[in-house]
Amino acid sequence: MGEISMINQKGIIFAADILQKNKLLSIIDKVAPFVEAIKIGNMVLLEYGWHIIEEIKKNTKISIIVDLKLMDIPYVAEILSRRALDKGADGIMVCGTAGGDSISICKSIFKDKLVFIFTQFTHFTGLITEKMANEYIELAVSLKCDGIQVPASIPGRVKKVKRLVGDKLIIISCGIGEQGPLIGSAIADGADYEIIGRTIYNAKEPSEAAMLAKYEITNVMKEYYGLNKRLYMRL
Amino acid sequence: MGEISMINQKGIIFAADILQKNKLLSIIDKVAPFVEAIKIGNMVLLEYGWHIIEEIKKNTKISIIVDLKLMDIPYVAEILSRRALDKGADGIMVCGTAGGDSISICKSIFKDKLVFIFTQFTHFTGLITEKMANEYIELAVSLKCDGIQVPASIPGRVKKVKRLVGDKLIIISCGIGEQGPLIGSAIADGADYEIIGRTIYNAKEPSEAAMLAKYEITNVMKEYYGLNKRLYMRL
Repeated sequence: MGEISMINQKGIIFAADILQKNKLLSIIDKVAPFVEAIKIGNMVLLEYGWHIIEEIKKNTKISIIVDLKLMDIPYVAEILSRRALDKGADGIMVCGTAGGDSISICKSIFKDKLVFIFTQFTHFTGLITEKMANEYIELAVSLKCDGIQVPASIPGRVKKVKRLVGDKLIIISCGIGEQGPLIGSAIADGADYEIIGRTIYNAKEPSEAAMLAKYEITNVMKEYYGLNKRLYMRL
Repeated sequence: MGEISMINQKGIIFAADILQKNKLLSIIDKVAPFVEAIKIGNMVLLEYGWHIIEEIKKNTKISIIVDLKLMDIPYVAEILSRRALDKGADGIMVCGTAGGDSISICKSIFKDKLVFIFTQFTHFTGLITEKMANEYIELAVSLKCDGIQVPASIPGRVKKVKRLVGDKLIIISCGIGEQGPLIGSAIADGADYEIIGRTIYNAKEPSEAAMLAKYEITNVMKEYYGLNKRLYMRL
């Protein structure tokens, strides 16, 4: 799975959806010690363009996942993933709905990096059924993608997906905190990473909020994975 | 449907997927007389950020549709559509798969502008079935969206959708030219606009290619909609 050694244990992926650049860079700097990767979504990417990845990279060594929720034909998928890689992205998020050809082309470009498949929404009016999500998960396994995004906001879903994929895919779970589920709950259910955004960056002291989240997750890990067990490593 | 008077007849939406800024602006300038709107997709938006919309607007009065293929929760949909509107976008493209709440929030922000729903892929490994696409089309009608994107690359699809929606939605058809179907064929089948990109911007003389495309579409319109019939107006 290549050279990504920074994402190397269960923990937090920080969803840095902060529009103001100074605030974005300063909060990333503050929370970096407590998170395993940073997710840069379309909000920030569309504000500044790809260049923002380079700017973040100047200040931190933490892996950056560009959460494009890429939903396009292979021709566009190829250009977008090439540009993301060139600018320093360590991982990319592609919608399962885009299908095998679009995913494969991202995979071929991100071959030494990480490809994640977006499987299902956290909001309840999103039109991806569990059956469709399962199809995307099967596709992620068969195309040897690195991981999948699974909503923590659907009760029992992370547990069910974990039983389905075992250790074949990294499970990163979204919808934690502001959207409902308690921090640590998805990891308790078998997820590898919890995506946390607003709970951290809207806090008065983001570094404290990140530290607290990390502490909660560590407690969950002790409880569920044993005190002496080496922190879960897969990459 | 508000103040959009620039998109006012059947014709061409130019998919300006050109990464180099000078080339992008100069080709838009050259093809502007022959097209009814410009579609700016994620390729260009992610290269330069929202700001590119303002730059294009400096040089042309033509409507700009930002083709985000927005595939996200309402919270993100709200922020993205607000930023796109602030920067001068006249229309926005949202994935039907994102569901009613995400679409509604875009609709509320783009209330005097245009909201288009992406219904189906042009490539054949995309995982949106006809049944799903029909569900998105019904949603577009019930939420009073302005239009839908329908692939010309699926034989008979535009015709079928036209029968389904009548004049309730603007049909913009994608996958024309480079991806297969002849220019004019989707309009002959009932589409209002054909999205043409590579056939124009990869031509030696983009303005000639645009003019030729416009000519072909005009011929189709004469043949199918009658010489003396006033050009189709809906907005």
